[in-house]
Amino acid sequence: MQPAKCVRNSNRTTNSSEFLFSFIIHSAGGLNTVEAVWPLPQTFISSSEQYRLNPQTFYFGYGMQSAAQPGCTVLDSAFKRYFSLIFLDLTSADQWAFVDKPFSVEISPLSVKEYHRYGRASLNAQTVWGALRGLESFSQLVYQDDFGSYFVNKTEIEDFPRFQFRAILLDTSRHYLPVQTILKTLDAMAYSKFNVFHWHIVDDPSFPYQSRTFPDLSAKGAFHPMTHIYTQSDVRRVISHGRLRGIRILPEFDSPGHTKSWGKGIIHKRNETHLRKYLEVSSVFPDSYIHLGGDEVDFTCWRSNPDVRAFMQAMGFGGDFTKLEAFYMENIMNITSALNKTSIVWQDVFDYHERIPKDTVLHIWKGVPAKIKEELSRITKAGMRVLLAAPWYINHISYGQDWRNYYTVQPQNFSGTEEQKKLVIGGEVCMWGEYVDATNLMPRLWPRASAAAERLWSDEQQTSNVDKAFPRLQEFRCKLLRRGIQAEPLYVGHCKHEYQGI
Amino acid sequence: MQPAKCVRNSNRTTNSSEFLFSFIIHSAGGLNTVEAVWPLPQTFISSSEQYRLNPQTFYFGYGMQSAAQPGCTVLDSAFKRYFSLIFLDLTSADQWAFVDKPFSVEISPLSVKEYHRYGRASLNAQTVWGALRGLESFSQLVYQDDFGSYFVNKTEIEDFPRFQFRAILLDTSRHYLPVQTILKTLDAMAYSKFNVFHWHIVDDPSFPYQSRTFPDLSAKGAFHPMTHIYTQSDVRRVISHGRLRGIRILPEFDSPGHTKSWGKGIIHKRNETHLRKYLEVSSVFPDSYIHLGGDEVDFTCWRSNPDVRAFMQAMGFGGDFTKLEAFYMENIMNITSALNKTSIVWQDVFDYHERIPKDTVLHIWKGVPAKIKEELSRITKAGMRVLLAAPWYINHISYGQDWRNYYTVQPQNFSGTEEQKKLVIGGEVCMWGEYVDATNLMPRLWPRASAAAERLWSDEQQTSNVDKAFPRLQEFRCKLLRRGIQAEPLYVGHCKHEYQGI
Repeated sequence: MQPAKCVRNSNRTTNSSEFLFSFIIHSAGGLNTVEAVWPLPQTFISSSEQYRLNPQTFYFGYGMQSAAQPGCTVLDSAFKRYFSLIFLDLTSADQWAFVDKPFSVEISPLSVKEYHRYGRASLNAQTVWGALRGLESFSQLVYQDDFGSYFVNKTEIEDFPRFQFRAILLDTSRHYLPVQTILKTLDAMAYSKFNVFHWHIVDDPSFPYQSRTFPDLSAKGAFHPMTHIYTQSDVRRVISHGRLRGIRILPEFDSPGHTKSWGKGIIHKRNETHLRKYLEVSSVFPDSYIHLGGDEVDFTCWRSNPDVRAFMQAMGFGGDFTKLEAFYMENIMNITSALNKTSIVWQDVFDYHERIPKDTVLHIWKGVPAKIKEELSRITKAGMRVLLAAPWYINHISYGQDWRNYYTVQPQNFSGTEEQKKLVIGGEVCMWGEYVDATNLMPRLWPRASAAAERLWSDEQQTSNVDKAFPRLQEFRCKLLRRGIQAEPLYVGHCKHEYQGI
Repeated sequence: MQPAKCVRNSNRTTNSSEFLFSFIIHSAGGLNTVEAVWPLPQTFISSSEQYRLNPQTFYFGYGMQSAAQPGCTVLDSAFKRYFSLIFLDLTSADQWAFVDKPFSVEISPLSVKEYHRYGRASLNAQTVWGALRGLESFSQLVYQDDFGSYFVNKTEIEDFPRFQFRAILLDTSRHYLPVQTILKTLDAMAYSKFNVFHWHIVDDPSFPYQSRTFPDLSAKGAFHPMTHIYTQSDVRRVISHGRLRGIRILPEFDSPGHTKSWGKGIIHKRNETHLRKYLEVSSVFPDSYIHLGGDEVDFTCWRSNPDVRAFMQAMGFGGDFTKLEAFYMENIMNITSALNKTSIVWQDVFDYHERIPKDTVLHIWKGVPAKIKEELSRITKAGMRVLLAAPWYINHISYGQDWRNYYTVQPQNFSGTEEQKKLVIGGEVCMWGEYVDATNLMPRLWPRASAAAERLWSDEQQTSNVDKAFPRLQEFRCKLLRRGIQAEPLYVGHCKHEYQGI
């Protein structure tokens, strides 16, 4: 759980950080269309009363009652960032001639007192992470009229996420992604309120992670030992960039399958190597979860190795490779527990009936919709938590508005008790890298991933109509474009602010 | 036909410009892998003899016998352009310490004399357009070793295109494309030896062409009257950029369907308007072809209009709207002929049995493969020329290596005589704009369009194996990336020069 104060001295973001935040703007003014917030807040009451913002006097500040105060890095930098995102064209407009009453947004983590002063919005959040989400919502409420003036309408929002785990997977092994591309993705994730970056950092084709303990892994296993790697400093940069945006970095070191690239630089001292590997991963990545992979283990490699077969005989596994797989996974899950971290593994680990620590999260990635429901029932019946990725394999492109498929997923629609439903901790959009690199990642990811974002954040009843979502998502895509995210179009048309940021 | 000299004083590029060019490099040196040329030349003989290029002394020049000499804008600027494309990293390399024998490429349009001097390549072409294609091939032959030195291997190439018409369609009505995006597309087209840019400039959603005669059409019909238009100067820039790269600009003003955007700014004086419209188009766009559209005419609009129905009665068409459509198309095809231009129309115009001028080109866009073959037989049997687009609707994306489908098209595989086969003048890759704008155009177009480019340029027998093409296309995609074209990956892996130009 998140301590209820600024986390400036903590290097660990936690898993259930964004509880309730509420948000009230009190103002007076004329009529205007109200722009929506994506993903849709739990409660959203808006009126036609509009208030004009003067960028010269506008400010974000901490409330008197706030547990967080200046010096809280996460919010200090968020204030600066959101000011720039809201007033993007500061240099071009001549609205500075007008002098309005100052308008400010006051952030009060933990405070529930409401401010009713004129020209003031108050944002009350239980944690700084909730405050970040509120700032994002506020930034989306601001719009410009045809003359370039900025407005916000009187609005009351109460909000919290439906699921605590709203992830995007990028695959940096099948193609290397420059650090800049990852940082840009984190920016865009924050705009859709995603909060977990699942970094599928290594796999068969390449090993870009530059290990402190085993530097040969990238020196020999990366596409290029100098240009196609993530140094320790790169990794720290990604973690820090994510943290400032309320995004946790969940690293995956997938094994025992998908490890071809490890072969070139590996040292063969089985148990000691394991421990040292996970010791490093555990200290480099502060998140309390580690993704251990465990999917698609191909036994032909083990079968071909006399040492492996001898070991199996010694262990009494006979010729049953699933027993060896189970032994291996148990081994690394136990190491992970010993390091005080929680394991996430692909569903295969459950399917093969290993003894799984109770707090392990099973990651559903396989199957057609009926099969997925079955699996959700089965795993949650065993009392295990699940993370749903299967319906959001967004790398599988098709012609037309496939975002509608991502939007209409019902993650808790399977047969089971209410308790079972609660074991679905969230969902993940997967962008596997077979056909994706920095040339096409951004337009392929956005705004299609944002459709899943609303499913994971918003109330299902209020967001059950995909046709109603369409114009809102179009509008949100234009906001992404305005902020310099190369989000592709959903259909014929144009955005008011097109290509300036691209 | 292209006069056999430099075309510096002509503002019209013609339709059959790139006959035979041959290309010989004589050199001596060590061993190295030979990089291929995409699209595959008709004859390509390469050896392991390699020659080192010194960027300080390398030059392109005109042969003594050449009809073109300095002052020929198309070649002068091509020399400069290709020098920069070949020696992209001039600033970073330290190979300048070496002084090699000068290596030069001598261009001799019309000359067939071969040069056998040491350290010299000779490029003989019948036209400057052929010389441009030869320069592109030469530029692809140059490679760098691991130390950054440039090499070219001893190579003999004889080449000519299989089809004279190798087009790409961009749709600037469903989404506006900035002029820079169009120019960048022309750059990339030249790298794949495309020679026609089919500019589907207006359609239902918007009218971005700023007309001299009817400025209201864009003032009222564009997405934005100032930012989302193509001015006369923009159009001249596109034409000039294309011309310098041997790419003709084929404008399409599609009517009588697909004209919703015209409605806002149109003046209703039927015949006079037509003539003035085509007079302007004919003078603004120098190409000898004009695309008149003629597809997907929906009769409900005409049916709802009493004036139209009265006109039909007066003309004796009764209630047969196809007769009105035929009358309309005949009318504009005759105007086009009177302006000394050749019409291209979508196949619908043939399907509705209008009387069609014999030199009209029918543009095939509909149907499944079997249906397309039937249509090709039927139209060529009537003695009409055809342009094939249907198999290359590249906007229809799907997961995986769909470039293989574009590669394995057999444009002349239909039942008909040899004479009929010759009436297939070429093919066109269509990127319709429903889901495409400047955010995703480049990675969606390249290198998928390049697969079609090889089908349209190269000998079918020599390029029948799609698996053999794969590594060559991967290599070519890396060359595009190195040149700053945001071409997406074909599969897992990386390029030696990645992202510097992007």
